[in-house]
Amino acid sequence: MLKVTNDQVAGHKAGDGKLGPLIDDLGRFYKPLQSNERGSNELTFYTSFSTNTRIPGPIRRFFPNFYGTQLVEASDGSSLQPHLVLQDFNFGRVNPSIIDIKIGSRTWDPQASEEYIQKGLKKDRETSSLPLGFRLSGFQIYQNRELGFWKPERTFQSLSADEVDLLLRKFVSSNTSANLDLQPDCSFASIVYGGSTGILSQLLELKAWFEDQTIYHFYACSVLMTYEKEFVSNGKIPCAEIKLIDFAHVYEGQGVIDHNFLGGLCSLIKFISEILITPEECTTEASPKDIQKNQIYFEELIK
Amino acid sequence: MLKVTNDQVAGHKAGDGKLGPLIDDLGRFYKPLQSNERGSNELTFYTSFSTNTRIPGPIRRFFPNFYGTQLVEASDGSSLQPHLVLQDFNFGRVNPSIIDIKIGSRTWDPQASEEYIQKGLKKDRETSSLPLGFRLSGFQIYQNRELGFWKPERTFQSLSADEVDLLLRKFVSSNTSANLDLQPDCSFASIVYGGSTGILSQLLELKAWFEDQTIYHFYACSVLMTYEKEFVSNGKIPCAEIKLIDFAHVYEGQGVIDHNFLGGLCSLIKFISEILITPEECTTEASPKDIQKNQIYFEELIK
Repeated sequence: MLKVTNDQVAGHKAGDGKLGPLIDDLGRFYKPLQSNERGSNELTFYTSFSTNTRIPGPIRRFFPNFYGTQLVEASDGSSLQPHLVLQDFNFGRVNPSIIDIKIGSRTWDPQASEEYIQKGLKKDRETSSLPLGFRLSGFQIYQNRELGFWKPERTFQSLSADEVDLLLRKFVSSNTSANLDLQPDCSFASIVYGGSTGILSQLLELKAWFEDQTIYHFYACSVLMTYEKEFVSNGKIPCAEIKLIDFAHVYEGQGVIDHNFLGGLCSLIKFISEILITPEECTTEASPKDIQKNQIYFEELIK
Repeated sequence: MLKVTNDQVAGHKAGDGKLGPLIDDLGRFYKPLQSNERGSNELTFYTSFSTNTRIPGPIRRFFPNFYGTQLVEASDGSSLQPHLVLQDFNFGRVNPSIIDIKIGSRTWDPQASEEYIQKGLKKDRETSSLPLGFRLSGFQIYQNRELGFWKPERTFQSLSADEVDLLLRKFVSSNTSANLDLQPDCSFASIVYGGSTGILSQLLELKAWFEDQTIYHFYACSVLMTYEKEFVSNGKIPCAEIKLIDFAHVYEGQGVIDHNFLGGLCSLIKFISEILITPEECTTEASPKDIQKNQIYFEELIK
């Protein structure tokens, strides 16, 4: 009894006869195994990672559990197709707010084909990857029972540092809504980003591992940040978590750290840290010109 | 009374009628100010940095002191030309061993001209910059009174991780010499790289600043590592120091950390850390094939 997930914020989506991931009601996520090199690469990674004894236990929790592959009826109705069977991160969640952040200023690996490199480089230069070291690939923010999710369909990868800062602030604000709140209140910042079990703490744990590990290099891999806004509003713990996904371009580290991923991760950490230090100071408030620019930007975003 | 320096390991060298840096006997280093954008960029950086009150004092010691510009007779004998007047790092040193390491997997800035980007990217891909996050740009290793310096003239930028590891080990070994010691003894590793005032400690201090600072982005900038081998041999402190040089491609950070420099710096730190952890285990000793490869490599290097 597989179904389409509602909580996917980036990548190919299932439904309307399209091929995409499916979930079951037991907490498993079925990702179609691509028939090209990407598919075999991702399977190789999951197989290697799940059996690698050098991965510290606490780091393993940032990655999806892997349950092998399985032939299931694909979401496009075509036929039985091989799927990776993974952990469904959103299993048990009610209304998760999610951001998908592709890490690294470079999304291509040095050994890739010339065509792939040129295509990847072009995209890295057009988006915030090159200047910021990461780009936002998708997100959904739960607003409240009446308004549901704010889930812009439009691409928003070529954001400036100020715009990224604004979105990361809106992600942890109670006044997130489609009607252009230019001053996100960041009222959940300390409980979602901060604290000993918050997102910043988890990112720093991941960073410490990346400073040391030379087993894998992760290109075009994403960090998902997720939490339950309603839980925070009701005084419960928000279950803030980070998870790594998308391993179609993971390669052997060959004795060198993944300085590309690590640099981008440190850049994201700096953004989150700044929000915790100055929750009241949204940099986009700096000038009326900035505000106008953001108004235009958000109007386009929610069209 | 300006003269040519003997301790320059990379970049344009003075002498034989060529334009290059000069030194005086008061500890100052005269770097010809390039007449193009690079020259004005570097001058802008030194002017900005030397007056910036946000630079922490301990970080400032990793940069050259700046004494303004001065018209001096150029080393190519042409005429009076503008020079940057900087601190001469090697003033007072006797026989400094030096490595020049260009930091960052990307030596070009996102706003550079298309021509510059393509040229820089090509070089980054051909050298170890892309895979390792840094490349060795030059070095000299003092051997002893009889043999003097081991100072290969040949370019050695397209090194593998194992070859870089070997050179960083030879840098702190007593048995460095032209006659192919394949097993560097790393006998100075703990005193030069290690300890509370050693090179690793300084690199970590610099790293902590780069995790936070969003003032400057340093492209194609080098870290110099230097120490006095004879001092160590005589039981004195080796005066191990790191210094940053070459700021012709420094740009404003615009609120984002320099994830490109930081990633490369972390990669270098990992190499140095590994040497301290396993001074006896040179990875190039792994197989006879590696040894043969390195023999060929070093034979070519010292030709």
